[in-house]
Amino acid sequence: MAKGSPAVLTIAGSDSSGGAGIQADLKTFAALRCYGASVITALTAQNTTGVQAVHGVPPEFVSQQINSVLSDIDVRGMKTGMLFDSAVIHAVSSTLKEHFTNKGVIPLVCDPVSVSTSGHSLLHPDAIDAMIDEIFPLSCLITPNKSEAELLLRKRGFPSTINTVQDMIIAAQNLSTLGSKAVLLKGGHINITRDDLNGVVSPAVADIEVNHDFIFDKNVEILQAHNTANVTNEFVVDVLYIQSERKAILYPRPRLVSSNTHGTGCTLSAALACALGRDTALAEATAQATSYTHLGIETASPIGQGFGPLNHLHSVTKSLIAPRTVGNPFPLTYSLIRNTSATWTKYVQHEFVVQLGKGTLDRSSFLHFIKQDYHYLKYYARAHALLAAKSDNFAPILAATHIVLHIAKESSMHTSYCAQWGITKEELESTPESTTTTAYGAFLLDTGLQGDTMKLVMVLAACLLGYGEVGLWLKSEAQKPNSWVVWEGNPYLKWMEDYSGEDYQNAVKVGLETIESRAVQDPPSAARYAEWLAVWERCTSLEKSFWDMAMNLS
Amino acid sequence: MAKGSPAVLTIAGSDSSGGAGIQADLKTFAALRCYGASVITALTAQNTTGVQAVHGVPPEFVSQQINSVLSDIDVRGMKTGMLFDSAVIHAVSSTLKEHFTNKGVIPLVCDPVSVSTSGHSLLHPDAIDAMIDEIFPLSCLITPNKSEAELLLRKRGFPSTINTVQDMIIAAQNLSTLGSKAVLLKGGHINITRDDLNGVVSPAVADIEVNHDFIFDKNVEILQAHNTANVTNEFVVDVLYIQSERKAILYPRPRLVSSNTHGTGCTLSAALACALGRDTALAEATAQATSYTHLGIETASPIGQGFGPLNHLHSVTKSLIAPRTVGNPFPLTYSLIRNTSATWTKYVQHEFVVQLGKGTLDRSSFLHFIKQDYHYLKYYARAHALLAAKSDNFAPILAATHIVLHIAKESSMHTSYCAQWGITKEELESTPESTTTTAYGAFLLDTGLQGDTMKLVMVLAACLLGYGEVGLWLKSEAQKPNSWVVWEGNPYLKWMEDYSGEDYQNAVKVGLETIESRAVQDPPSAARYAEWLAVWERCTSLEKSFWDMAMNLS
Repeated sequence: MAKGSPAVLTIAGSDSSGGAGIQADLKTFAALRCYGASVITALTAQNTTGVQAVHGVPPEFVSQQINSVLSDIDVRGMKTGMLFDSAVIHAVSSTLKEHFTNKGVIPLVCDPVSVSTSGHSLLHPDAIDAMIDEIFPLSCLITPNKSEAELLLRKRGFPSTINTVQDMIIAAQNLSTLGSKAVLLKGGHINITRDDLNGVVSPAVADIEVNHDFIFDKNVEILQAHNTANVTNEFVVDVLYIQSERKAILYPRPRLVSSNTHGTGCTLSAALACALGRDTALAEATAQATSYTHLGIETASPIGQGFGPLNHLHSVTKSLIAPRTVGNPFPLTYSLIRNTSATWTKYVQHEFVVQLGKGTLDRSSFLHFIKQDYHYLKYYARAHALLAAKSDNFAPILAATHIVLHIAKESSMHTSYCAQWGITKEELESTPESTTTTAYGAFLLDTGLQGDTMKLVMVLAACLLGYGEVGLWLKSEAQKPNSWVVWEGNPYLKWMEDYSGEDYQNAVKVGLETIESRAVQDPPSAARYAEWLAVWERCTSLEKSFWDMAMNLS
Repeated sequence: MAKGSPAVLTIAGSDSSGGAGIQADLKTFAALRCYGASVITALTAQNTTGVQAVHGVPPEFVSQQINSVLSDIDVRGMKTGMLFDSAVIHAVSSTLKEHFTNKGVIPLVCDPVSVSTSGHSLLHPDAIDAMIDEIFPLSCLITPNKSEAELLLRKRGFPSTINTVQDMIIAAQNLSTLGSKAVLLKGGHINITRDDLNGVVSPAVADIEVNHDFIFDKNVEILQAHNTANVTNEFVVDVLYIQSERKAILYPRPRLVSSNTHGTGCTLSAALACALGRDTALAEATAQATSYTHLGIETASPIGQGFGPLNHLHSVTKSLIAPRTVGNPFPLTYSLIRNTSATWTKYVQHEFVVQLGKGTLDRSSFLHFIKQDYHYLKYYARAHALLAAKSDNFAPILAATHIVLHIAKESSMHTSYCAQWGITKEELESTPESTTTTAYGAFLLDTGLQGDTMKLVMVLAACLLGYGEVGLWLKSEAQKPNSWVVWEGNPYLKWMEDYSGEDYQNAVKVGLETIESRAVQDPPSAARYAEWLAVWERCTSLEKSFWDMAMNLS
């Protein structure tokens, strides 16, 4: 199982429209990056306007599903939702008890679902006692809403009216005597004002905490002053009561005016199961789950004609780069090349390269290229020195510095070529820099000064990788029978040998690894990927221009 | 419905273990950011080792579920999976036909599931004809694997042995005569070598294309040369045949040695439904869906004792910053402040600030502060000028430049203070810079030179926002009855008025908006968020040191 991605199980009804039931649970599990399994207790033909039909599942088949899952999968967190009737409840409790006895207890959240958001009864009235007696004792947490809590309290002879935060705290305390380790009493149907909230938070009541995820902490006057939206004075408060600590924690948040509340309870208990499956403490698990659910309502777009579902996907974003795998260890580079394939091909299979491979390249073009490349390499070295200067620990500082030394070595190759053709070092140095060379070289340094180190790595990549590609391409073509590439006796043999050779290819390999590992360590947003792609394509195009310049002697 | 997040529907069986069936479909829908609905045709008690029991759903209840979904939700893509028996098939086809007649056709992918990965029969043998006659004509695509294709071909009197790519192409062509618009014949159970593949791709066969997502294109010699893993010579090839274009497209990828294949077919057809729901053309939809499924297998971690499920979540990453909402329009800033609350409080409620509010602050401390702040503001102005220099279009260039002008104005406030206390401009300029001032100022410029523009924005934020917070805090405290803050008659009144005043608070507002909108436009990875947080906390801490320095006259 992927690290940090525990398996979690929901035992609940199916909602065909996908907003509630096991569908909401599975979406929540996925959005919170858990592995989801699901045991179905009943099917509903349902949509956002209501429940049109229910089809019960035989209790023994519910047990069979639980057995199939728990006998095979290492489930770390669970929730129950709609349990339909007392026979199903008995099947669930007896099957779970057996597993808990044999394999240890799994944290269970019981959402005591009795009525749907749209008002449809989802639990036979005579099943309430069975739920209390059989499921609550197996649960670390129960999550009733106002009407469910009142029903449960009435059943067991407690005062059952819940209208204020104080009522909620007392109700949660009383509910915690029914068998579960803790109670999360949901306040979606209770109106609380800021004064109500401040009243409760008075230090006179010692064991009450308030979570501040949605009610701003102190020292954020600026965030309150500059929030131009009409900030409501009405709050929803969920109350967590933890029996062993005799502590109540309030989770207030602004009341949302929204009809996208179909499946809210399912989503909350599913999110709790995920957090508990990661061994998160109850208070923090509740903070995460209530926050996830609240944002699901707040960011939802309308679906259907009735109470629409939450947006379950606000907590994830699309990955831009495919994962590195054995089959494709260089997904970013491959993606850059494929997304700019026309420009890339014009560069790496340029007429200059073809003529060089054939040995027919005009000597003056080659020498012009070598002289300009000599100037270019100074920019290229400086850009790597800039990379060292922008790096914040020794490994990248040294890596960039070694490349500067490598480039210096490459430049000596130019000097020796030129010497071979009667051009002195002095002549090389005094050759005027062509506009293309300046454009490309200055672009490197400008981009390097403007962006972060990854952008600088990207601007340096097209040169490094492209020359490696040209070297390998010429070499592999030369090895084919009757090749168009002339290897032995080619006046440019040393150039081809250098770029296809081990030393340069090692640099290519290091470059590829640098690019890919940085992208894994700091995966780009769409905006950053677009920037990288633009920089890559610009450089690819400047490389092509560089060879045009050599051919034109411009 | 969220833009680009179409609703998609699966009509299939339930897999309690979550790896296949509607569970795999819903996970796929979520991972590909579609809204998922699901109609259940049959329940299975199932895990990675096999199917332990099956519970059929009455055909009329299947119809009821379809009606509930399609009467309410604007479904844009659909798939069918396990259809159980001919009665369910008839219920599905007649219900769909009715909707298609009334409301228009929805793209449907039919996965002609007959046998599970673990070998369990999932379709009554006498139902094959019903599936061909009733479901295929409603489908834009069917997605049989080798054994399903052979079964279908045998049923309808076609040659039915499929062992080579050529066989696959012919089989796909023949299958396309059975009623669907196109056929995707899956090659998971057929061994193809590179030579087989190259043989087929010969230009002699005119209407065959090859997708190169997993088989490297030309001009990527470097990626092949530096892939040190043993690259297999065995391939899986899926063949798409599009009847109207009389075209076959091959989707080859390296054969994976994996037992994490439970639910592969479900996942593929679900991913196809998502792509078709976004109006993606069939060839591209198939590329996306086969790639998603392949990576799901390749990145899976073991779950269960048998054929484990795919990793459905490789295509998404966790969002680090909560969405901007009406209730919390500044989620990044709030998160930075809360994650560094101890340091933040030490800064904004510093003893210097408290004494200043009371009017008891030692005059020498205030003047020392003002003199050093004057030096600091030069760094602060330069850092904004650097931000302008690093920006790549006029809006941010101008915004940063206006802030430079604003800082110059702020610095004149210092000059006038000092004049008021008998300190000349010359004395101000010649005051030596303290170490704390240099540390903070140089840190701004170093960070600005080192990182991208957002990092520079972050390094500038603690000063801008903190002084705004101090100003608002003192002002709001002053307005309370019997306040400890002395407003009228306070020797530092002008300072308090300046930082709580409209001009400065407008700058705070613009700063908040800049930070938050940049984070939405370019959401940070975990690594980048950690960098921002570190920079923010460092500056917060340097701000505190700055006031320590003022108190100590150091």
